[in-house]
Amino acid sequence: MKHPGFWKMLTVAVCMALLGCLQAQELQGHVSIILLGATGDLAKKYLWQGLFQLYLDEAGKGHSFSFHGSALTTSKKGQEFMARVLESLSCPKDMAPGRCAELKDQFQQLSQYRQLKTSEDYLALNKDIEAQVQHEGLREAGRIFYFSVPPFAYADIARNINSSCRPGPGAWLRVVLEKPFGHDHLSAQQLATELGSFFQEEEMYRVDHYLGKQAVAQILPFRDQNRKALDGLWNRHHVERVEIIMKETVDAEGRTSFYEKYGVIRDVLQNHLTEILTLVAMELPRNISSSEAVLQHKLQAFQALRGLQKGSAVLGQYEAYSEQVRRELQKPDSFHSLTPTFAGILVHMDNLRWEGVPFILMSGKALDERVGYVRLLFKNRAYCAQSEKYWVTDQSQCLPRQIVFYIGHGELGSPAVLVSRNLFRPSLPSESWKEVEGQPGLRLFGRPLSDYYAYSPVREQDAYSILISHIFHCRKDSFITTENLLASWVFWTPLLDSLAHEVPRLYPGGAENGHLLDFEFSGNQLSFSQQQLEQLVPGPGSVPMPSDFQVLRAKYRESPLISAWPEELIAKLANDIEATAVQAVRRFGKFHLALSGGSSPIALFQQLAMGHYGFPWPHTHLWLVDERCVPLWDPESNFQGLQAHLLQHVRVPYYNIHPMPVHLHQRLCAEEDQGAQLYAKDISALVTNSSFDLVLLGMGTDGHTASLFPQSPTGLDGEQLVVLTKSPFRPYDRMSLSLPLINRARKVAVLVMGRMKREITMLVSRVGHEPKKWPISGVLPMSGQLVWYMDYEAFLG
Amino acid sequence: MKHPGFWKMLTVAVCMALLGCLQAQELQGHVSIILLGATGDLAKKYLWQGLFQLYLDEAGKGHSFSFHGSALTTSKKGQEFMARVLESLSCPKDMAPGRCAELKDQFQQLSQYRQLKTSEDYLALNKDIEAQVQHEGLREAGRIFYFSVPPFAYADIARNINSSCRPGPGAWLRVVLEKPFGHDHLSAQQLATELGSFFQEEEMYRVDHYLGKQAVAQILPFRDQNRKALDGLWNRHHVERVEIIMKETVDAEGRTSFYEKYGVIRDVLQNHLTEILTLVAMELPRNISSSEAVLQHKLQAFQALRGLQKGSAVLGQYEAYSEQVRRELQKPDSFHSLTPTFAGILVHMDNLRWEGVPFILMSGKALDERVGYVRLLFKNRAYCAQSEKYWVTDQSQCLPRQIVFYIGHGELGSPAVLVSRNLFRPSLPSESWKEVEGQPGLRLFGRPLSDYYAYSPVREQDAYSILISHIFHCRKDSFITTENLLASWVFWTPLLDSLAHEVPRLYPGGAENGHLLDFEFSGNQLSFSQQQLEQLVPGPGSVPMPSDFQVLRAKYRESPLISAWPEELIAKLANDIEATAVQAVRRFGKFHLALSGGSSPIALFQQLAMGHYGFPWPHTHLWLVDERCVPLWDPESNFQGLQAHLLQHVRVPYYNIHPMPVHLHQRLCAEEDQGAQLYAKDISALVTNSSFDLVLLGMGTDGHTASLFPQSPTGLDGEQLVVLTKSPFRPYDRMSLSLPLINRARKVAVLVMGRMKREITMLVSRVGHEPKKWPISGVLPMSGQLVWYMDYEAFLG
Repeated sequence: MKHPGFWKMLTVAVCMALLGCLQAQELQGHVSIILLGATGDLAKKYLWQGLFQLYLDEAGKGHSFSFHGSALTTSKKGQEFMARVLESLSCPKDMAPGRCAELKDQFQQLSQYRQLKTSEDYLALNKDIEAQVQHEGLREAGRIFYFSVPPFAYADIARNINSSCRPGPGAWLRVVLEKPFGHDHLSAQQLATELGSFFQEEEMYRVDHYLGKQAVAQILPFRDQNRKALDGLWNRHHVERVEIIMKETVDAEGRTSFYEKYGVIRDVLQNHLTEILTLVAMELPRNISSSEAVLQHKLQAFQALRGLQKGSAVLGQYEAYSEQVRRELQKPDSFHSLTPTFAGILVHMDNLRWEGVPFILMSGKALDERVGYVRLLFKNRAYCAQSEKYWVTDQSQCLPRQIVFYIGHGELGSPAVLVSRNLFRPSLPSESWKEVEGQPGLRLFGRPLSDYYAYSPVREQDAYSILISHIFHCRKDSFITTENLLASWVFWTPLLDSLAHEVPRLYPGGAENGHLLDFEFSGNQLSFSQQQLEQLVPGPGSVPMPSDFQVLRAKYRESPLISAWPEELIAKLANDIEATAVQAVRRFGKFHLALSGGSSPIALFQQLAMGHYGFPWPHTHLWLVDERCVPLWDPESNFQGLQAHLLQHVRVPYYNIHPMPVHLHQRLCAEEDQGAQLYAKDISALVTNSSFDLVLLGMGTDGHTASLFPQSPTGLDGEQLVVLTKSPFRPYDRMSLSLPLINRARKVAVLVMGRMKREITMLVSRVGHEPKKWPISGVLPMSGQLVWYMDYEAFLG
Repeated sequence: MKHPGFWKMLTVAVCMALLGCLQAQELQGHVSIILLGATGDLAKKYLWQGLFQLYLDEAGKGHSFSFHGSALTTSKKGQEFMARVLESLSCPKDMAPGRCAELKDQFQQLSQYRQLKTSEDYLALNKDIEAQVQHEGLREAGRIFYFSVPPFAYADIARNINSSCRPGPGAWLRVVLEKPFGHDHLSAQQLATELGSFFQEEEMYRVDHYLGKQAVAQILPFRDQNRKALDGLWNRHHVERVEIIMKETVDAEGRTSFYEKYGVIRDVLQNHLTEILTLVAMELPRNISSSEAVLQHKLQAFQALRGLQKGSAVLGQYEAYSEQVRRELQKPDSFHSLTPTFAGILVHMDNLRWEGVPFILMSGKALDERVGYVRLLFKNRAYCAQSEKYWVTDQSQCLPRQIVFYIGHGELGSPAVLVSRNLFRPSLPSESWKEVEGQPGLRLFGRPLSDYYAYSPVREQDAYSILISHIFHCRKDSFITTENLLASWVFWTPLLDSLAHEVPRLYPGGAENGHLLDFEFSGNQLSFSQQQLEQLVPGPGSVPMPSDFQVLRAKYRESPLISAWPEELIAKLANDIEATAVQAVRRFGKFHLALSGGSSPIALFQQLAMGHYGFPWPHTHLWLVDERCVPLWDPESNFQGLQAHLLQHVRVPYYNIHPMPVHLHQRLCAEEDQGAQLYAKDISALVTNSSFDLVLLGMGTDGHTASLFPQSPTGLDGEQLVVLTKSPFRPYDRMSLSLPLINRARKVAVLVMGRMKREITMLVSRVGHEPKKWPISGVLPMSGQLVWYMDYEAFLG
């Protein structure tokens, strides 16, 4: 649960960051843009063009500009490089060539290269900017430093900027950072802390260039402009699934030194696909032009993500990868990489809008096609009375209904927004999106293109051009704030840790992959649809499998013993409990079940919650065997385990649930509050003869059961049904059913699991009736049945 | 909730019925079969052939037979008729013609016609049977009377059989009845009671011939023989929907005198489709050859059916119907029938196996094709990493997965069982089912036939032949027991009543219907997908529609008033509550909401449960404004309404739910138990300043609010926060928040709905602060806000 102040703190942080920005933006003047790494690939391919575009868009609107390319290269070589790049810049298609030449010329005049290597270089840069501004009689508006450099260089540059290149008062500073931003939560945090020592949050713009892709940038505006149609649709009642996909045909050849450290999850899913996920899933702010509101809602979406587990992922690696790594990184022939080049992840959101809707994230290299998209498939809630041959595309509600944000490439070859015609006619801004022309024969997502209202951008724009404009316009919501970044790493890091030693499935690459990478989900679990045919990368040594054994039936302390592998044991116990319940309800109309806390029963609760459709929950009363003296909402409370793993999934009436009254009058287990007596009274009143139909117990390594510990002065004998006890472990205070009450039950099941229990299991098998020493030895139902359920590890070591 | 003894009673009843049958079956001897209505259409088309088939199957196995055709017709005409029918009987295809002639001859020898009209006729029949048995030295095993006569004739015949035609001790009597078995619960009950006065339950065999159709009769065996594959699939986690469909192309012409009284629901859905539904939905008994177990599980399936409401149905009528009725029944030109000839029904089951899975029942006349089927469509839980063009039918989990019991007709033209190849290879008994041969070009349910494992019967058999054999073999589970019949009518009657005056949508018939009859579901509601274009049958007079008005804002008792049509009003109130909740959680980390009982809030609860995804339920505390002094599980309890309509659908932590402690120490609202003080303490401890964030009130026609009634000695003023009060209505004892406590709230909303409230609304608008007379007038938050929410009927009359 969130700390009550959480939302408040959040609001304050976001507000402060944005206020600075908005105030500064209003004042016009001179803007210096320093592109660090000006001779790199990214700069050459996208950034200079983006800066030129900014100049084209903004030069006439009151600001003046200067552009400083810089790198470690000497000035002469840098100048030459820049000249070549600037010459190759292009103007929008609709601009007259003369006008284009003129503007390019102006831009070249305003651009210069300088080497930035030493602190003196930065000091000199600062002096030059100040001199220029003064000389031309301008007011300085602000400076943008674009870090197109590897992350190891960040600290040094940041220190220099902070100490030498901050503009004077009244002008702003913005630094633009490129990923990777760490490779797990810790490293991201460290990097963020380091950068935070040089820059304010509002000064930093972390780029995820997917947020600049036109189809992605259109998600929120689309949701906003089609609120009326989407209001009833954009939720778990209507959305069947959401797919967020980025497929590549290329592999990692030539980049393995980077890739081997990151892998597909860090490279694509943690950033691009997660950002898209939040745009789809977040609650839509009333005003989407408020960066503050967007960022805040986005963070809330992160809070609603259900934690990932190992089973949430399937991993693959194209067959040639390890060989490429060996070659490029000079590894020995025996080297096999575990780095995934393909991942499918199942994400769930724990909020009412999205509960139960699968979000499927998938990305991989060496796949059969290059394509990126977000696809919402809607539930088919129609029955069409007419046979299929009479169905008409835009009328039949039985044909698939989808909304797709097509990021690019693929069969369509351009960004697009697609809405099935049987859904609604969407509204898109006509100045920037136009209807796609028909392409006969083209099918997308199972339907011909003509089944969709399809729109593509009037003018295709590069993501970086868009983002550079957003930096200039202070559109913080197109960038990754520190909170956002860390929230994403908090989400992904546990999964990455748990997958560190996982062996990915090998795949040949391209169309050859066949159905090898198809995967399926069931509950929270993902798995490949096809069994692995052969283990191509050697896995860990083989262990005996559950199927090697049968369920074992024997005697233990003269009572029936059932032993099996954990999964089978739990299944057997759950079946036996259900059978007992059904019988009790048939005979008496109700079933009184008393449950223990701890970890073993959790697997049982999950089993009962998921697989037992015939369980008579509406007629079942649930009691606690013991409880820790903590509030019911405390994570340590036994009741919490019951609530989270069972009650949330089945329908037990509120008044059939009987938590132990450990928390009365705002005190915990105070003798004077008579909680134990109260519980005993409830039992006497509701349970015939105070004889539970079934009591589920565990056994501790010290021979305790329920919360009855060795030498306990209460509960081992006597008249009391419910007692307060002390535990040798925290929390010390407990409430527990007494042995005499337990022994009145019609059936007692003792569940013992895990290697840790081996010794006590051996010991208890040999001792007599000595409850003072080993309370478990005092479990002996007067007229009921006792059954032991032990897994092989507890029973056989 | 079921009475505790329910299951027990049920078991006993079923047992007794079957024991009689099984004991009797073991004794061999002579069997007389009397076909009443032997000259009717049904007898001619199916029943004689069925009896002949029985003779072919059983004659060699120890029993001897005689067949008595009977009717009101004179013996001579009857004899002639019978001779013609018997001559036309056919043998199985694989029987040699000579053998066939021989057996037909034997059968004709054993068959004779007799007029059965008067009691003397029955006495004579009895005497003849006894004489024949004695004469031939046989032991009489039993007698079957097959009632192929209209229901009005039942009583008379039954009385005669009971008084004159019962066989002697040690021999059994079976009477076979044909539908209709009443036209609603009352009439069915009367008919059952009447028949029950003549026959034992185990003597009656009610025929629903759909249970004899081969594909239907295969449902349970299929589930049984494929348990392993189906175990994990046959439930809400995997089944997307179930469709149970019977489409006809013929209309009701020539049969309107029957049809006008029954309509499609009584004619097809209440019986055939409901029977199929229970076969699909029921828990599968361990031993499906136990009729007892099958019938019992079937009845349990009936118990799990969620009640239908008007909104669960869509109705249609083919355009020519009314004219046909006018013509055949001599109605005036102005006559328009409301009888539906088409119905789509949405059924839900309230059990853990099927919760949330839509069962769609549909049948109609004058549709585009004749076909019957049960189709289970499974959820698509796969993501296929490869683009569609590479998908392979039996490997891709992304192609549809279905199991279909194809009852007959349609494009396939024969009964069949279809299982998608990407699901599993089913096991069917090879002696009776064979794989269907390929039919190129044939598509079923969106996929080519080759996508399925498809089986059809080795030998197509008529339903009546199968059922006659089951009657002989005492297979009671193929027939409708009285309990089963009444359970079905209990389910259908309320819907039929509520639809009695509903105007069905008119449809042209055949392929012309287009998408006119397509329908959709949302929650529990069904509606046609297309808006009705014109009202072809005159409906009730037009009323002002919600859209004619806007939400009205005004003042009432100097506080803000919001007025609207009910639906809009509830939506507005729900929005306002959510906004208050979000704000409270932002500011304080939690939201304390106190809710009133009664019927108006139920719509609000439903609205909050279904439409408010951003509601911070995990941080919300729910309190009761007032409570009736009944146990929490009593249907009268306010808490029950909250539980059923809100708590079941949202996730409020157990310990944030605060029912009023009206039930302590097994007593209700005893002063000594200090429940009111206890609640007050809880409030003081958890709610800052005992100031709720929002209190929702209602207003009674006597001006009461909460459970504070006029002249109440407690709660209208003073120090007490929570009080015990008396109501002028049952249940008299109440617990309530006091006015002083209510007035400490930050916000109070008063919801007033319905014409009944008009007078008090007028009155209260004019009175001053007189809480003794009108408690509602004492609602005046000290520093909080008061808002009135009134629907137009309450406010404007």
